[in-house]
Amino acid sequence: MNYTTIILLIPVFGVLGLLFTFVMSAWVARQDPGNERMVRIAKSISEGAMAFLKAEYQVLAIFVLVVALLLGYNGSQEQTSHFLVAVSFIFGAFCSASAGFIGMNVATKANVRTTNAARTGLSKALQIAFRGGAVMGLGVVGLGVFGLGILLLIYSNVWDISKTNELTVVINVLTGFSFGASSIALFARVGGGIYTKAADVGADLVGKVEAGIPEDHPLNPATIADNVGDNVGDVAGMGADLFESYVGAIVGTMVLGIGLMTLPGFTDNFSGLSAVLLPLVLSGVGILTSILGSFMVNVKEGGNPQRALNTGEFGSSAIMIALSYFIIIWMLPGQWQMQVGDTTVTYTSTGIFFANVIGLVAGVLIGLVTEYYTGTGTAPVKSIVNKSGTGAATNIIAGLGVGMKSTAIPILIIAISIIGAYHFGNLYGIAIAAVGMLSNTGIQLAVDAYGPISDNAGGIAEMSELPKEVRSRTDKLDAVGNTTAAIGKGFAIGSAALTALALFSAFTQTAGISSINVSQPMVMAGLFIGGMLPFLFSAFAMEAVGEAAKDMITEVRRQFTTIPALKAALEVMRKNEGKDMEKWSKEDQKTFEDADGKAEYGKCVEISTKAAIRRMVMPGLLAVASPVFIGFAGGPEMLGGLLAGVTVTGVLMAIFQSNAGGAWDNAKKMFEEGVEIDGQKYYKKSDPHKAAVVGDTVGDPFKDTSGPSLNILLKLMSVVALVIAPSIAIKKVDTNKAADNQLINGAKKEIVINSQK
Amino acid sequence: MNYTTIILLIPVFGVLGLLFTFVMSAWVARQDPGNERMVRIAKSISEGAMAFLKAEYQVLAIFVLVVALLLGYNGSQEQTSHFLVAVSFIFGAFCSASAGFIGMNVATKANVRTTNAARTGLSKALQIAFRGGAVMGLGVVGLGVFGLGILLLIYSNVWDISKTNELTVVINVLTGFSFGASSIALFARVGGGIYTKAADVGADLVGKVEAGIPEDHPLNPATIADNVGDNVGDVAGMGADLFESYVGAIVGTMVLGIGLMTLPGFTDNFSGLSAVLLPLVLSGVGILTSILGSFMVNVKEGGNPQRALNTGEFGSSAIMIALSYFIIIWMLPGQWQMQVGDTTVTYTSTGIFFANVIGLVAGVLIGLVTEYYTGTGTAPVKSIVNKSGTGAATNIIAGLGVGMKSTAIPILIIAISIIGAYHFGNLYGIAIAAVGMLSNTGIQLAVDAYGPISDNAGGIAEMSELPKEVRSRTDKLDAVGNTTAAIGKGFAIGSAALTALALFSAFTQTAGISSINVSQPMVMAGLFIGGMLPFLFSAFAMEAVGEAAKDMITEVRRQFTTIPALKAALEVMRKNEGKDMEKWSKEDQKTFEDADGKAEYGKCVEISTKAAIRRMVMPGLLAVASPVFIGFAGGPEMLGGLLAGVTVTGVLMAIFQSNAGGAWDNAKKMFEEGVEIDGQKYYKKSDPHKAAVVGDTVGDPFKDTSGPSLNILLKLMSVVALVIAPSIAIKKVDTNKAADNQLINGAKKEIVINSQK
Repeated sequence: MNYTTIILLIPVFGVLGLLFTFVMSAWVARQDPGNERMVRIAKSISEGAMAFLKAEYQVLAIFVLVVALLLGYNGSQEQTSHFLVAVSFIFGAFCSASAGFIGMNVATKANVRTTNAARTGLSKALQIAFRGGAVMGLGVVGLGVFGLGILLLIYSNVWDISKTNELTVVINVLTGFSFGASSIALFARVGGGIYTKAADVGADLVGKVEAGIPEDHPLNPATIADNVGDNVGDVAGMGADLFESYVGAIVGTMVLGIGLMTLPGFTDNFSGLSAVLLPLVLSGVGILTSILGSFMVNVKEGGNPQRALNTGEFGSSAIMIALSYFIIIWMLPGQWQMQVGDTTVTYTSTGIFFANVIGLVAGVLIGLVTEYYTGTGTAPVKSIVNKSGTGAATNIIAGLGVGMKSTAIPILIIAISIIGAYHFGNLYGIAIAAVGMLSNTGIQLAVDAYGPISDNAGGIAEMSELPKEVRSRTDKLDAVGNTTAAIGKGFAIGSAALTALALFSAFTQTAGISSINVSQPMVMAGLFIGGMLPFLFSAFAMEAVGEAAKDMITEVRRQFTTIPALKAALEVMRKNEGKDMEKWSKEDQKTFEDADGKAEYGKCVEISTKAAIRRMVMPGLLAVASPVFIGFAGGPEMLGGLLAGVTVTGVLMAIFQSNAGGAWDNAKKMFEEGVEIDGQKYYKKSDPHKAAVVGDTVGDPFKDTSGPSLNILLKLMSVVALVIAPSIAIKKVDTNKAADNQLINGAKKEIVINSQK
Repeated sequence: MNYTTIILLIPVFGVLGLLFTFVMSAWVARQDPGNERMVRIAKSISEGAMAFLKAEYQVLAIFVLVVALLLGYNGSQEQTSHFLVAVSFIFGAFCSASAGFIGMNVATKANVRTTNAARTGLSKALQIAFRGGAVMGLGVVGLGVFGLGILLLIYSNVWDISKTNELTVVINVLTGFSFGASSIALFARVGGGIYTKAADVGADLVGKVEAGIPEDHPLNPATIADNVGDNVGDVAGMGADLFESYVGAIVGTMVLGIGLMTLPGFTDNFSGLSAVLLPLVLSGVGILTSILGSFMVNVKEGGNPQRALNTGEFGSSAIMIALSYFIIIWMLPGQWQMQVGDTTVTYTSTGIFFANVIGLVAGVLIGLVTEYYTGTGTAPVKSIVNKSGTGAATNIIAGLGVGMKSTAIPILIIAISIIGAYHFGNLYGIAIAAVGMLSNTGIQLAVDAYGPISDNAGGIAEMSELPKEVRSRTDKLDAVGNTTAAIGKGFAIGSAALTALALFSAFTQTAGISSINVSQPMVMAGLFIGGMLPFLFSAFAMEAVGEAAKDMITEVRRQFTTIPALKAALEVMRKNEGKDMEKWSKEDQKTFEDADGKAEYGKCVEISTKAAIRRMVMPGLLAVASPVFIGFAGGPEMLGGLLAGVTVTGVLMAIFQSNAGGAWDNAKKMFEEGVEIDGQKYYKKSDPHKAAVVGDTVGDPFKDTSGPSLNILLKLMSVVALVIAPSIAIKKVDTNKAADNQLINGAKKEIVINSQK
């Protein structure tokens, strides 16, 4: 097969993924959304979510435009880049934003339809929730492969990519796509994270704790904002996160593939392009297996929904591994030799397959560790429950301890994976491991997005005051996804680490630096500063949540005291506490019903939106500006130190915060069934439960705002470095030489560029 | 002057410091300890503290013996080491342990004497507390300089240190001293930290919160353990910490000084030894200025005690800077040239002086930033107070945010210092910056130790039921030291960072590796694992505090319910709540008095001691074993990655945890004077205050156990690496060559060793 055929085929895989999302999306939309009240509530959620996206995209449009201009100008100045990098950037941003839009659009349709299906049974509800998630999942991978594929197709007609120097330019221009995706992802994750937790903390602290009304109760003015938050944070945010990893891993691998082009063995396969095209082909085929897997998720009424999800996820993984083997063997030469330091090392295509599998296995293992440290009833979570007996302080200390401890094994897994993947395929092996981990993103993300959809479905059931069994069915759906969601988190962190490393290696290659020597003070300084950024970034995120939650609390309190209908309803609720509503006096029932819809949900939605938009800017700029500043002021080695620092502490802080938050969450949930502490049984509303609620509230911004944002931070910074690599690489050599003799500077620049080619 | 004269003089400086401590110690002991009850309480504290030291040193003796045997054997196998490294190690451990013993011995005498002096006025009380602290401070620096000096004197008679290869052996053997000091320091910090916080949390949660008795009340069985904890944690622990930094910085600088020996310019000065001896001379002279400074601390009755402390500290700093200039100019050649990469760089003695000053300035600046983020009434602390209005959860989130944010500026200061010091003096400049920062350790530590002595004095006043003005005087003393103590913390962290870097550079030189390239997967894996260790280590420490505190709580509860006299006294206290004791019924007064001394303090002391000893072992072994394992299994470059990782995240986590803890502490304290939140005034026992107490309790293990232990972790690991550097350096070359041809292995080893000399 000719390489041009492959390049032609790649966008087709993407289109298949997108076709699937349209079909599924239409299927979800065709389902019955339920009664008038449900439709009204769902509409509020959907409108809130879209209002947020709109506000967010308006701000981002300006950002994208400004960065595109800078990029385009800078690209046009470099021999190894081109102004088209700006076009890639805009297109990447557009695809990422579209992925968020598609996912949220279907999620806000699927939620109410899941609720409605849950009125009659579990099977159909599961199907709707899962297919809603599948739209998100396939949308992300479809847009990723389509976007990269179509750009490559176009650029391969502008340049002759079978020549190393022209291919280098094309791939650098392609990194712009990854940069665009990352930028949107960062803002979406941070903004969405701030939104969802401000609403959540606000709704919980005033609604549940102060006013004593249940979660998702229609009397709580922040309840719509809370449900909107699940969509903008957990659906759109997670989608953007994995879109970024997905694209980043592919692009990083393509860059490293350039280095293999001219090796004997490669030159005969696809004009030397096999290593460059491999990640795209693997990802494209991954779309097919994800579609296949999503059809495996089916459960008969009374069947086990957990098994259904597992069948889909693990089934498609197994198929993907088998197919990967044949693809790798087919595309790459059987063996080749490379100079590594002073020795010549032989690599094989089977080795690359092993590297690919290492990535997938590492992802699953990290997920299982995550599950162990955060799952209901596990030893670490039980230890937090036990410490709740002596109050909030000991609960918090225990949770922080569990979070910190939980970093150990995942880090060892990552370390071993790096060494193993490198052994089998050098730096390219590490990158392929990241691709392997992410080849299943479609189905993985489907399961991830299924969670918040079920969660939302439960919220709508509560707000519409449907019979209790509906809520309990949606709770069951929600619980089913827990293990798979934990694995999803493991994948998100693990893939962020490997993708960042792939991009990091790509950066060193592109910047032409042979060594990032931490015993050099500039590099060490970069390492320190890079290591510090995730702390600063987390602080910004948490501060933002704190401030926004405070505004939310003030607003909810205001509504409770100034809206007469709400005030009256709260009073009768308190008066009749513990009594079923049927047994209330007629008058009280009427007062209560009169309050329905009187809460001004829109105000709370607005507060969350404004806070999120305003507060996402600073951390976003920090992430983009710091590698640029360090790169131009301190040179590529210091920038390398910065990236290494941000990668290491970013991964650590992400694991620490996500797992501490998850463990606190489930420690609190364990009280619902009752827990035993020192021989005594405790339930909800006991003192230990109250302590556990404090822990859960602390964990909220940890696990849903700052923690996951770090995944993106480290990838984004690596992408930025990769994009500016050609500029700082040349600049560095310039300065050195310039010190010797400034007069022949112009001539020298020419030489330097040539020697890089 | 001949170099042998200098080597002869150095121990004399140390002896002067030690003489000063004996004179001051005797002076403190001569002061009046007060009435019989005070003496009895002080005796309980002193006995508890000594019992802990004894138990701790018994365990450590075994550890020291085992490690010494391994070290001695390993040293005897290497050409660049010697079995005497074991002797240095034992002596270092002994000096470190003695420093802890001397400091705690005087502190447990000074506390009660300060209380007694505070019965009549402030001036004498300040003097006693400060001189008690000065014994600790001068004891540490005296033992450090004496220990290193006397060993160097002895070894310089065994080897001819004017020859580079023999000097290399001597200095490697000397690093054993630093290793010994570090080992004891780690166990002392971790053990002391666990002890003090287990007792503190236990005493607070049951005594203050549950039983409602004031802090340090004689009815609280954990109160003696709590006061013992201040001594073993804040006095002995802090002393061991700075002893380690002090010795580590000197040794690291000496190692790097070897590299300058044979440069033109150096050969004429002190037979090439000037750069090697400079850190010892600077430290020796620092002892004199510290003694001078401690005599400047004097305050007349009614004078300003803060100014007295400042005069002592900043006065001696100024003198030290002036003297440093003349010493450096005198000892080092005016200028010299070195090959750095491809260029020849000229360095000057004035430049080395600048590097020295950079260290001192960086220490002060980091201290001021610490003060800003943790001081009473500053913006960050106020923000935590404000968030206490909405409960414990928002207080915790705010505190975590402040702690994370507070890492930014200190890290930038460290980064700039590294670059600046390197600019002025290459790697040697970085090491000299660490020495500069630490040259004032004597007086700095005096001020640090003054704090817990005043704190203890207050506790004794409370337990002896002295009039309220005594307690308020000791509180004033305690408060005065706050700013200086914050600066002390800044020094501890800053010096740990610079010392670790100096040791790190020394390691790379000794291991003979030219580059620690993080784009190599083994190095990156090392970086990840190293970065993870401070998280794991912190988790162990916090878990230990949690478990020990739980045991303590159970014991205090048991005593309250099973000791009849205590039970009765608590009942009459509750009955008469809010009434002055004089107004109680005669019978109640008698019941209350009968309970005096009935609490079984010893049991609580025992629980803390056992928990601390048992729980300090695991983290200690982790710190020592991991560099050894990685070094031998992964080679020196991977070990370099490990060190870089542990240094960066160690410093970050130390700043984060210390500052978050400090900020929570002072946020809580602000309620004593009353604070305004959203226009309303709140005092102690209000709901926001209760939220702030939760924050403070979470912060306790952060700021007093895990945070400060990290300072030692990173230095200890670097020292271990430095000690084993000769072994792994040779091993690495061996393995490479061995792969080629195993038969001529023996002969080759000989060649490798020679080429290293």
